[in-house]
Amino acid sequence: MTLANEPNRAASPKRTRSKRKGPGRPEGASVSKNDILDAAETVFANLGYAGTTLREVAAQAKVTQALISYYFGSKYGLFEAVFLRRGQLISQQRIENLEALRTHGRPKVRDIVRAFLLPTLAMRATLQGRDFLRLQSRLHTEPPEISYKLRTDAYGESTRRFVEAVREALPRLPELDAYWRVTLMIGTYLYAFSDTHRMDAMTPKGLYDPDDTDALIDQVTRFVVGGIEAR
Amino acid sequence: MTLANEPNRAASPKRTRSKRKGPGRPEGASVSKNDILDAAETVFANLGYAGTTLREVAAQAKVTQALISYYFGSKYGLFEAVFLRRGQLISQQRIENLEALRTHGRPKVRDIVRAFLLPTLAMRATLQGRDFLRLQSRLHTEPPEISYKLRTDAYGESTRRFVEAVREALPRLPELDAYWRVTLMIGTYLYAFSDTHRMDAMTPKGLYDPDDTDALIDQVTRFVVGGIEAR
Repeated sequence: MTLANEPNRAASPKRTRSKRKGPGRPEGASVSKNDILDAAETVFANLGYAGTTLREVAAQAKVTQALISYYFGSKYGLFEAVFLRRGQLISQQRIENLEALRTHGRPKVRDIVRAFLLPTLAMRATLQGRDFLRLQSRLHTEPPEISYKLRTDAYGESTRRFVEAVREALPRLPELDAYWRVTLMIGTYLYAFSDTHRMDAMTPKGLYDPDDTDALIDQVTRFVVGGIEAR
Repeated sequence: MTLANEPNRAASPKRTRSKRKGPGRPEGASVSKNDILDAAETVFANLGYAGTTLREVAAQAKVTQALISYYFGSKYGLFEAVFLRRGQLISQQRIENLEALRTHGRPKVRDIVRAFLLPTLAMRATLQGRDFLRLQSRLHTEPPEISYKLRTDAYGESTRRFVEAVREALPRLPELDAYWRVTLMIGTYLYAFSDTHRMDAMTPKGLYDPDDTDALIDQVTRFVVGGIEAR
């Protein structure tokens, strides 16, 4: 079955850009809101929330701090916009994938796992998308007041549906275990997709190909399916 | 079988402290090297490498920046000392656990996984140890020049031994898959042990007990064993 965001036909994050310019925008700004979000995404990914300043984002985006404040209010407002821009898209694609599977009957664990992982994997196709994955994989080490609400806003509903799907596929699995296994799937993919370079550092020369995306999705899927179906 | 660092008899990180004072130390300092490492661990965990300043660490430890520079040279030197202090201890305990298992024959996957996880789980017993886990779980999002060498210095040798042990337990598993599965085990536990609060946020009220450490190790172990043994 073909799902949205199979690696080969990954939607480019560029498509989500809008060049709409609001009224009352400070003069001298030829940079769109989405260009600022791109710059901010990179800075947050590199420096974390605490380490990021609006000054640094302004320099990176080649705009004034005033323009950033005008669009996003505060550093938190900017971070929220950066996170939700892609987080909500991923979430929506996951739900669409799951709905598509359901039209063929009750999905198997392997299909559920792929429906969950593929929209994120597609993010790895661009440098900008990889910045988002790095930002996201450090989200859980950010202060709770930054991370909890955003995570729930972006992913709460879609993740709940995946827990349901896992419980339907494995009716004997206790409810608490189903939550655990979806949570551990999330931990696994956040690490695996965020370019940790651990495989490069560890494997004997020639064994591992960091550009083999098919191997990446295959290895993560098999591990996670084994974990979810474990006794 | 009982392994080093079963949760109930976890070694307190305090035990690793030394109050030895070197010669030539700047005057007016009544704070030990390990007190500075504790303070730095907390600051690095909260702010990340880029966001941390020696000024902040000095304020937290109630010492002068000069004393920190005297002991550790640079910010990188301080980070290295913080990371290796516990990283090398965990690594050594993992190797001891594996050696202990080998005296009873070829270890099973479940025993190998527990030998790997328990020394880290023990870190969760103190607030200071939890700061280390948060710092470590964000290490892979730090710049490569900070993270790669430290990770290899602390964990390279012990992780290689666990790959070997997995290959002995599962002789039909291809070599590359064994590296992947140990890598994904690391991603899973880094997420699960670093207080992401995802389970709290997601589960229906009353289902999940965040203080149930036995459930934590049991859930992570079963998921990881399923993942490592997957087809």
